[in-house]
Amino acid sequence: MNKIITIGREFGSGGRELGRRLAERLGVAYYDQEIIQEIARRTAMSEEYIQRVVEQKPTALLPITIGHTFQFTTDGVDTMAQTVYREQSDIIRELAAKSDCVIVGRCADYILRESNPTRIFVYADMESKIRRCFERAPENEHLTEKEMRQYIQKVDKNRAVYYEFYTGRAWGDWHNYDLCINTSGKDIKVLVDSLTLLQR
Amino acid sequence: MNKIITIGREFGSGGRELGRRLAERLGVAYYDQEIIQEIARRTAMSEEYIQRVVEQKPTALLPITIGHTFQFTTDGVDTMAQTVYREQSDIIRELAAKSDCVIVGRCADYILRESNPTRIFVYADMESKIRRCFERAPENEHLTEKEMRQYIQKVDKNRAVYYEFYTGRAWGDWHNYDLCINTSGKDIKVLVDSLTLLQR
Repeated sequence: MNKIITIGREFGSGGRELGRRLAERLGVAYYDQEIIQEIARRTAMSEEYIQRVVEQKPTALLPITIGHTFQFTTDGVDTMAQTVYREQSDIIRELAAKSDCVIVGRCADYILRESNPTRIFVYADMESKIRRCFERAPENEHLTEKEMRQYIQKVDKNRAVYYEFYTGRAWGDWHNYDLCINTSGKDIKVLVDSLTLLQR
Repeated sequence: MNKIITIGREFGSGGRELGRRLAERLGVAYYDQEIIQEIARRTAMSEEYIQRVVEQKPTALLPITIGHTFQFTTDGVDTMAQTVYREQSDIIRELAAKSDCVIVGRCADYILRESNPTRIFVYADMESKIRRCFERAPENEHLTEKEMRQYIQKVDKNRAVYYEFYTGRAWGDWHNYDLCINTSGKDIKVLVDSLTLLQR
C-alpha cells in the first residue's frame, strides 16, 4: 500500500507550503490545486466555479428526511456540490492508488481512511496567521488587521462546516489527526527540516 | 544552546515511553524520575513524599492578596510544594544547560521557555489510554474499566491544575506546543520510528 500523507490546515497557517515542502523532501507526488483541475477536466465545469463550490458552506446541502430515508435537496447548486465531492473522492482515491503522495485539504484524510494515511493538521496562533496572510497575499493588503482576522475566521468556519458535512467529524479536533504541527512564528522551510530531528 | 525536547502527556498516552525512545534514538539524555531523585537528594525529603507533592492539586496553593501584593498561604504543605517546585525548576535549568536532552513532564516546557525547546504533547483517545493503562500497570488490574477511566481523568485533572497554577497556561492547549502526537492504537516504538518519515 502506498504511503499517503494528508494535510488539514487552518487558513494562513502555512499548511499548503508545509505539504509542498514535505513532498519535495520525500520525493513524492504533491496534490492540491491539481485535484480541482482534474475535476474541471472530468466535469467540464470551470476551475473557478469548482473552487467556489468547494469553498461554499454546504448549508443548503443539509439532508432532509423523507419517510424513513435521508434525501438531499435537489436544486442545481446542491447537485453540483455533490457531483464535485463525488468526483473529488474518486480522483483522490485514484491518486492514492497510483503512488506515495501528499494531499492537501479536500477531506482526503476521511476519503482515504481505509488506506491508513498519516494525517497531519497544521495550525498557528491568530497573530501568525494574520502576518502570513499579509505576506503571502498582497492582493489583500487593503484589508485592515481586523478585516483580515474576520476573513481568516470566515474561511476556517466554511472549512469546518464543509468537512463536518461530508465526514461527520469535527474539523480541527486533534483526535482526528496523527500529528498536529504549530507553525506560529516559524519559517516553514526550517520547520520541515527540523521534522528530521530524529536524524542528526 | 543545547537542543531540548520537552514532553507533556495525557496519562496513559504512552508519552513517557515515547520520550524515552526518542532520547534513545537521538542519543541524548532522558530525564523523568531522575528529577524527583535529585530533588530528594537536595532537600532530604523522601522520593515518595515529593512524588505525592507533585501529584497533588495545588488548590491549597492559591495565592492570596494581602494589601496590594500577592502572598502564598504559609502552612507546611504549601511551603513544601513551593520548595519542591523551586528545586525542580533549578534542576531542570541545570540539566538543560548541561547537554541536549528530553525532559518528561514537570512544566519543563514553561520553565525552559527562554531556551526555545521543542515542545511535544502526547495524547490519545480514552479507549487507547485505558487499554495501555491495563497493559502497563498490572497492579491496577482489579479496577473495572469505568474505574480506570475515572482514575485517568483524575490524574489528568490534577496535572492540568498543577500546570496551570505554576505556568498560568492551559495544559493540553495545542497552542502551547510545537508538535502534538496522537498515539491512539499505535505501537510507540513504531511511532517513534515513523517520525523519521522524512528520511526514507
